[in-house]
Amino acid sequence: MMNNNQAAYDRAITVFSPDGRLYQVEYAREAVKRGTTAVGIKCQDGVVLIVDKRINSRLLEANSIEKIFKIDEHIGVASSGLVGDARALVDRARVEAQINRISYDEPIDVETLSKKLGDHMQTYTQFGGARPYGTALLITGISDGEFRLFETDPSGTLLEYKATGIGTGRPAVMKLFEEEYTYECSLDDAIKLGLKALHEATEGKFDVSTVEIGVISRSEGIFRKMTREEVATYIDQPAA
Amino acid sequence: MMNNNQAAYDRAITVFSPDGRLYQVEYAREAVKRGTTAVGIKCQDGVVLIVDKRINSRLLEANSIEKIFKIDEHIGVASSGLVGDARALVDRARVEAQINRISYDEPIDVETLSKKLGDHMQTYTQFGGARPYGTALLITGISDGEFRLFETDPSGTLLEYKATGIGTGRPAVMKLFEEEYTYECSLDDAIKLGLKALHEATEGKFDVSTVEIGVISRSEGIFRKMTREEVATYIDQPAA
Amino acid sequence: MMNNNQAAYDRAITVFSPDGRLYQVEYAREAVKRGTTAVGIKCQDGVVLIVDKRINSRLLEANSIEKIFKIDEHIGVASSGLVGDARALVDRARVEAQINRISYDEPIDVETLSKKLGDHMQTYTQFGGARPYGTALLITGISDGEFRLFETDPSGTLLEYKATGIGTGRPAVMKLFEEEYTYECSLDDAIKLGLKALHEATEGKFDVSTVEIGVISRSEGIFRKMTREEVATYIDQPAA
Amino acid sequence: MMNNNQAAYDRAITVFSPDGRLYQVEYAREAVKRGTTAVGIKCQDGVVLIVDKRINSRLLEANSIEKIFKIDEHIGVASSGLVGDARALVDRARVEAQINRISYDEPIDVETLSKKLGDHMQTYTQFGGARPYGTALLITGISDGEFRLFETDPSGTLLEYKATGIGTGRPAVMKLFEEEYTYECSLDDAIKLGLKALHEATEGKFDVSTVEIGVISRSEGIFRKMTREEVATYIDQPAA
Amino acid sequence: MMNNNQAAYDRAITVFSPDGRLYQVEYAREAVKRGTTAVGIKCQDGVVLIVDKRINSRLLEANSIEKIFKIDEHIGVASSGLVGDARALVDRARVEAQINRISYDEPIDVETLSKKLGDHMQTYTQFGGARPYGTALLITGISDGEFRLFETDPSGTLLEYKATGIGTGRPAVMKLFEEEYTYECSLDDAIKLGLKALHEATEGKFDVSTVEIGVISRSEGIFRKMTREEVATYIDQPAA
Amino acid sequence: MMNNNQAAYDRAITVFSPDGRLYQVEYAREAVKRGTTAVGIKCQDGVVLIVDKRINSRLLEANSIEKIFKIDEHIGVASSGLVGDARALVDRARVEAQINRISYDEPIDVETLSKKLGDHMQTYTQFGGARPYGTALLITGISDGEFRLFETDPSGTLLEYKATGIGTGRPAVMKLFEEEYTYECSLDDAIKLGLKALHEATEGKFDVSTVEIGVISRSEGIFRKMTREEVATYIDQPAA
Amino acid sequence: MMNNNQAAYDRAITVFSPDGRLYQVEYAREAVKRGTTAVGIKCQDGVVLIVDKRINSRLLEANSIEKIFKIDEHIGVASSGLVGDARALVDRARVEAQINRISYDEPIDVETLSKKLGDHMQTYTQFGGARPYGTALLITGISDGEFRLFETDPSGTLLEYKATGIGTGRPAVMKLFEEEYTYECSLDDAIKLGLKALHEATEGKFDVSTVEIGVISRSEGIFRKMTREEVATYIDQPAA
Repeated sequence: MMNNNQAAYDRAITVFSPDGRLYQVEYAREAVKRGTTAVGIKCQDGVVLIVDKRINSRLLEANSIEKIFKIDEHIGVASSGLVGDARALVDRARVEAQINRISYDEPIDVETLSKKLGDHMQTYTQFGGARPYGTALLITGISDGEFRLFETDPSGTLLEYKATGIGTGRPAVMKLFEEEYTYECSLDDAIKLGLKALHEATEGKFDVSTVEIGVISRSEGIFRKMTREEVATYIDQPAA
Repeated sequence: MMNNNQAAYDRAITVFSPDGRLYQVEYAREAVKRGTTAVGIKCQDGVVLIVDKRINSRLLEANSIEKIFKIDEHIGVASSGLVGDARALVDRARVEAQINRISYDEPIDVETLSKKLGDHMQTYTQFGGARPYGTALLITGISDGEFRLFETDPSGTLLEYKATGIGTGRPAVMKLFEEEYTYECSLDDAIKLGLKALHEATEGKFDVSTVEIGVISRSEGIFRKMTREEVATYIDQPAA
Repeated sequence: MMNNNQAAYDRAITVFSPDGRLYQVEYAREAVKRGTTAVGIKCQDGVVLIVDKRINSRLLEANSIEKIFKIDEHIGVASSGLVGDARALVDRARVEAQINRISYDEPIDVETLSKKLGDHMQTYTQFGGARPYGTALLITGISDGEFRLFETDPSGTLLEYKATGIGTGRPAVMKLFEEEYTYECSLDDAIKLGLKALHEATEGKFDVSTVEIGVISRSEGIFRKMTREEVATYIDQPAA
Repeated sequence: MMNNNQAAYDRAITVFSPDGRLYQVEYAREAVKRGTTAVGIKCQDGVVLIVDKRINSRLLEANSIEKIFKIDEHIGVASSGLVGDARALVDRARVEAQINRISYDEPIDVETLSKKLGDHMQTYTQFGGARPYGTALLITGISDGEFRLFETDPSGTLLEYKATGIGTGRPAVMKLFEEEYTYECSLDDAIKLGLKALHEATEGKFDVSTVEIGVISRSEGIFRKMTREEVATYIDQPAA
Repeated sequence: MMNNNQAAYDRAITVFSPDGRLYQVEYAREAVKRGTTAVGIKCQDGVVLIVDKRINSRLLEANSIEKIFKIDEHIGVASSGLVGDARALVDRARVEAQINRISYDEPIDVETLSKKLGDHMQTYTQFGGARPYGTALLITGISDGEFRLFETDPSGTLLEYKATGIGTGRPAVMKLFEEEYTYECSLDDAIKLGLKALHEATEGKFDVSTVEIGVISRSEGIFRKMTREEVATYIDQPAA
Repeated sequence: MMNNNQAAYDRAITVFSPDGRLYQVEYAREAVKRGTTAVGIKCQDGVVLIVDKRINSRLLEANSIEKIFKIDEHIGVASSGLVGDARALVDRARVEAQINRISYDEPIDVETLSKKLGDHMQTYTQFGGARPYGTALLITGISDGEFRLFETDPSGTLLEYKATGIGTGRPAVMKLFEEEYTYECSLDDAIKLGLKALHEATEGKFDVSTVEIGVISRSEGIFRKMTREEVATYIDQPAA
Repeated sequence: MMNNNQAAYDRAITVFSPDGRLYQVEYAREAVKRGTTAVGIKCQDGVVLIVDKRINSRLLEANSIEKIFKIDEHIGVASSGLVGDARALVDRARVEAQINRISYDEPIDVETLSKKLGDHMQTYTQFGGARPYGTALLITGISDGEFRLFETDPSGTLLEYKATGIGTGRPAVMKLFEEEYTYECSLDDAIKLGLKALHEATEGKFDVSTVEIGVISRSEGIFRKMTREEVATYIDQPAA
C-alpha cells in the first residue's frame, strides 16, 4: 500500500523523500527479495555458499544457471536478484582481483574487495543516469588464514556475518540460523545446516540437480565449487 | 490490463517499480514475443538452428530476410524480435570474434562470446539515454569439441539449453521439446524435430522457401547455413 | 484513433510500449507514407528506379527536386519521406562509398552499403537525443554482375526485393507488382511496368516533366539518370 | 485551431506526431511567414533579389537593416524570419565560401553551398538541445555561367526556383509570378516584376528607402547590392 | 493576460509556439523594459550615451552603479536590464576588442564588434541549457571617421540608429526623438536633447548625481565618460 | 502569497517569467534574508565589518562559526545566507587573490576581485544544472590607499556602499545608517555605529562572544579580525 | 505535514523554494536523524568518539559494523546516516590525508581536512545529477597539540563543538551535555559522560558488544579505537 507522498519521491535515485528515504534503493531491494535463495555459513573448518537454482525444465543445462562464482583462488561469490546485474558485478570483482595480483603480486584481501564492490554499488544510489544494482551478493574468502563472509545490498551497505541468507527465503533462513547456528562445527555440519535452511526456505522443493555449493575448507585453503557427485552425498544424508 | 501503479514506473529503464521490477525490460521482451519463431537443438551429433522467416510476398528476395547469421567459422546466431536491433548485435558479435582471433590467434570460446553479448545487453537495462534491445538471440557453436547453445534475452540474462525456442511460437515449441526431445539422436532427427516444432508453432503455415537452417555437425565442425536444396530434402520428408 | 495507453508511450524512442512497440518509429513510418511514390524493379536486363516528383508550379526548376541520387558509379538511391533527412542519408552513403574506394581501391558492395545505412538508421531508434529518420530508401546497384534492390525503413530494417514501392502509393504499386511483375522481361518492359504502377498510384496525375528515372542496364553496368528526352519516349508509349 | 493530439507532440523536434509530422519545424515555418517579404527572380540576363525592409522610423539607419547579404563575389542571399538566426546562417555561408576558396582555390559552386546550408538546417530538426532555424533563405549566384536561385526553409528542404518569394507576402508574390513571370526578359524587367510583386504583397506600403536590391547581371558576373540611387530609378518608373 | 496556448510554449528557448514565436526571448525583453532608461544620440559633431542610474540611497557610492562602460579607446556601451548579464556582455566585448588589437594591431571596427555581440546573444536563443540574456545594449563608437550607434536586444537582433533609447523610458524617449531629433546639431545640443528625453522618461525624477554621460566628440575621437562637474554644467542649463 | 503564474516559472534559473523575472534568483535572495546580519561601514579612518554570529549553545566553539573571512592581506569578506555556499565563494576569492599575486606579483585590486566574484555568481543565474548561490557578501579592502566596500547578491549584481548591511536585519540597519551615518568619523565611531545597528537589528540579543569584527585602519593598512578582548572594549562602551 | 507549496520545490537540489530553502538538503538531514547515535567530547586530556552500533543479531560480526573510522594517525571520524555514503566520505578523507603527507610530508591539519569534506558535501547541494550526502560526520583529531572536534551535515555546514551528538539520539545527548559537560575533566570522565548520553539516547538498550569507542589521549597523541576489553571496563563502571 503506497500513499501519495511516497509516489512523489520514488522515481529517481537523486531524490530524497521528506523522511530521508531513497525509495529507488528500497525498490531495488525488492528485486533481491524476489531472487533465488542463497545462504552462506562460516565455521571453524571453513566457509560454504549454497544456492537453490530453481531449475524447472529438463531442457536447461543446469550448470548454465550460475549463481555461485569463483572470483579468485581464495574468493567466491553467491548472488540473488537480477541475473544480468549480478554478472556485471562478478565481472568487476574478477577484474579488481586480477588488478591486485598484477599491482601487488598478492591475492586481494577479501574485505578490500568487498568494500570496493560496496563502494561501486553506493555510487549507483547517488548519481543520476542509471539505476541501482538490483542484486545482493554474499562474498566469501580467506585472507591471512581467516574466513570472511560479507553481504552487500543495493545501497552499497556492507555487513560481515557468521551465517546469513539473501533472496526470497531470507526470513526462513535467518530464523533457522538464529536458532541452530554454531561456529564450532565441522564444514560438513555447516553444509548440512545450509541445506536444511534452503529446504525450509523452498518448502522442500529442491533436489541435487538444482543445488550449487561452493566451499573453502581449512585444509584446501581455496574456493571451489563442488561437483554434482559431492553435492549428491549431502542430499542423500538428510540434514537434521 | 495495467493498473495505475505500473503506469507510473514503466517509462524509464532507470526506474524500479515498487515491487522491484523493470517494466521497460519486460516490454522489450514483448517485442521478442511478437517476433518470428526460431528454435535451437543440440544432439550428440551436432547442433541446429531453424527459423521460420514468414515471407508473404513473391516480390521479396527470400534470402534477404536473414534470421540466422554466421558469426565465425564455429559460431552461428538466430534472432527474434526487432530486426535492426538483431543486426546491431550480430555486428557486435562478429567484431568480438575477430578481435579474439587477432588478439589470441584462436577462435573465441562460445561461452565467452555469449557472456560478452549478455553483458552488453545488460548495460542497456541499467543506464539511461537508450532503450534495451528488443531482441533475443540463440547463440550456438562448438568449443573444445563440445556443442553449446545459449539464449539471451533483453535483460542480458544468459541461459544454456539443450533445446529451446524464441519468438511468437516459443510456448508451442517448448511444449513439444519437453515431450519429445532427446539428446541421443542424429542431427537429421534433431532437424526433423525442429521442423515439427516450427510446424506446430506456425500452425502449419510454412514451406521450404521460408525456412532457414544453420548447422554444426560433428563431422564438419563448422557452422554453415544449409542450401535451399538441402532444406527441401527435410521438408519433403515430413517430420514425425 | 489512439487510446490512452498509446499516448503514454509514444513520445520517446527510448521507451517501449507495454506490447513491445516503438511508437516513434511507427510515426516516422507515417512520414514515409505521406511521401512521394517511388518504385524499384529488377529484371534480367537491369534494374530501374522511378519517382513521381509531384511538381505543381511552373516556377520550380523541375530537376531541383531530386528524389533519385547517384551514390557511386554502380549505385543509385530513390527516397520518400522527409526531404532533408533523405539528403542527409544520401550524403552519408556517398561518403561510405568513397571511403571504400580509398580504403580498398574497389567499389563498395551494394549489400554492404545498404547494411551500413540500415545500421545507421537503427541507431536513431535506440538512443535518445534525436529522432528516427523520417525517410525510406530504395537502394539499387550492381555487384559481382548481379543486380540488387534493397529497401530500408525508419527502423533500420533492410529487405531485398525483386520489385517494390515506397511512399503514398505503395499499396497500389505492390498490388500491381504482385499481379504483373516478372523477372524475365526487358529493361524497357520493367520501366513500362514501373510507370504503369506510378500512374495507378497517382491516379493518373503525372507527366514527363515530373517523372525521374534511374537505371542500370546489363550492357552499361553503371547507374545513370535518364534525360528528359529518354523519359519522354516512355511516356509517349503508354504502359500496358 | 489546434486539437489535443497536436498539443501532445509539438514541443520537441525529436518527437514525431502520430501522423508523421514534426510540429516544431512547422512552427518554425510560421516564424518565416511572419517575416518581411523577399523575392528572387531569374531571367536570361541575370538574377535579382528584392526585399522590403519595412522601416518605420526616421531614427533608424536604413542600411543597418540588412536583409540581403553578399556571401562571396558570385553569391548573394536574402532572408526572412528571425533576424538573429539569418545572421548566423549568413556567417556560416561566408565561412563555407572562404574555406572553398582556400581549399580548392576557386569559388564555391552555388548548389554546393546551398546544400551545405540545407544540411546544416536539417540537423537542427533531428537532434535535441536546440530549436530549428526560424528563417528561410533565398540563395542566388552564378556558377559555370548559369544563374541559380535556391530556397531553403527551416526543415532544410532545398528547392530551385525560376522565381519565388518568402515571408509574409509569399502567397501574393507567387500568385503574380505564376501569372506574369517569363524567363525571356531583361534584368530590368525582372526587377520591375519583383517590385510589382512586393508592391502587391505589402499593399503598396513601401518606398525607395525601404527597398533593398541585389543583382547579378550577365555582363558583370558578380553579385552586388544596388545603391539607393539605382533603386530610386526603378521606383520612379512604376512597375507594370 | 496570457492564454493557455501561450503557457504551453513559453518555458524553453528551444520551443517555438504554434505561431512561430519564442516566448522566452520575449520575456527576456520584459527584463529590459523594467531596466533603467538609457539613450544614445548621433550628431554631426559626435555621439553621446546618457543613462539615468536611479540611485535612491545616500549610502550608495554613485559611481559604483556603472551603466556606461568604456570598451576600447573608441567604443563605449550603455546597458539596460539585468545588471549581471550586462557585465558579462561588457567583459566579452572588452576581450573581443583586445583580441582584435593583438591579432591585427588595430582597433576593432564598431560594426564588427556589435555583430559579434549580437551573434553571441542569438546563440542563447537557440540552444538549451541556458537562458537568453536579459539585457539590451547601446554600442557606440567611431570607425573610419564615422560615428556608429548600434542597439542589440535579447534576440540578438542588431539595428543601427541615429538616436534611440532602451529600458523603461523607451516609449517616451522615442516619441521625443521622432519629433525633435536632428543630425545637424552640436554635440552640446545632442546632450541637451538626451537629458530632456531622460527627464520626460523619468517624469523629472533625476539629478546630476544620478546621470552618467559618455561621449565621443569629433575633436577628441575617443570615448570618455564625463566627470560629474561636466555633467553638472548640462543639468544647470535646463534642456529645451 | 503566490499566484499560479509565478508557480509556472519559478523552478528553473533558465526560465524567465512573462514579466521578465528570474524567480529562482529571487528565492535565493530569500535565503540571504534568512541569514545572520552583517554590516560594513567605511569612514575616513578605515573600514569595518561586523557580524552577529547568533551562537546559542555553550557547547559550540564560538570561533568555529566564521562569518568574516580574511581573503588576502588587504581584503576581508563578511557573508550572510547559506554557510556552505559562502565558504565556497571565500575559497574562490582566496584562490583569485593568490593567482593575482603569483601572476603580477602584487595584491589584487579590491574592485577586480569583487567583479570576478560577481561574474562567477552571475553564471549560476544563466546556465542550467546548478542553482544560484544562496549567499550575499560584503567585500572590503584597501587599494591605492582607498577603502572600498562592495556588496554582491545572488544575481551577481555588484554595488559599492559607504555603509550597508545584509541578512535578516538589513532593513533595520539601513534605516539607522540613512539617519546617522557620516563618512567623517573615526574608525572607533564607525565600529560603535555598526554595533548599534546590529543591536537594533537583533533587538538587543547579542553579546561580545557572538560578535565578530574585522577592520582595516588607515594606520595598519591591512585587514585583521579583532580579538575577543578588543571586541569586548566596544561592547563595554555602549554605542550611541 | 507538508503543504502544496513545499511539494512543488522539494524534488531537486537545484531548486530554491520561494522562502529560500533547499528541501532536498533538509530531507537528507532526515536520513541523518534516522541514523545511529554518535557522540564526540573534547576535554583537557583528550577527545573521544562513541557510537552505539545497534546490533540485533548474533549472526552479525559485530566489528563489521564500523561507525568509527581511523583516517590518519591523528584523525578519526564517526558517522551517522546512510552507511554507504559515510564510507564514500571516509574513503575521500583518507585519500586527502595521504595526499597531504605525500605533498607536504606532514600530517593534514584537522580543520583543513574538515573543510575539504564540508566543501565536497556543499558541491552536492548546488549541482544537479546527484543527491546530497545523507550522512553527518564527527571529525576529531589533534593538530599543533590542540584537540579539535568538527561536525558536518548534508549541507556542508561545518561547526566546531566542545561536545556534540548526531543521529537519532541527538536531542537527548545535547540536553545532557548542556547540563553536565565540562572541559576540565579527565578523558575517563569524558568517556563516562558520553556513555551516559548514549544510554539516555537509546533508553538503555545498549551493551558493550554494540559500543564502539575511539580516543586520542594527550599522552598517546594518536587516534585509536578501543579494544572490546577496554570498552568493557567502562560499561562495568556505570556512568554518573
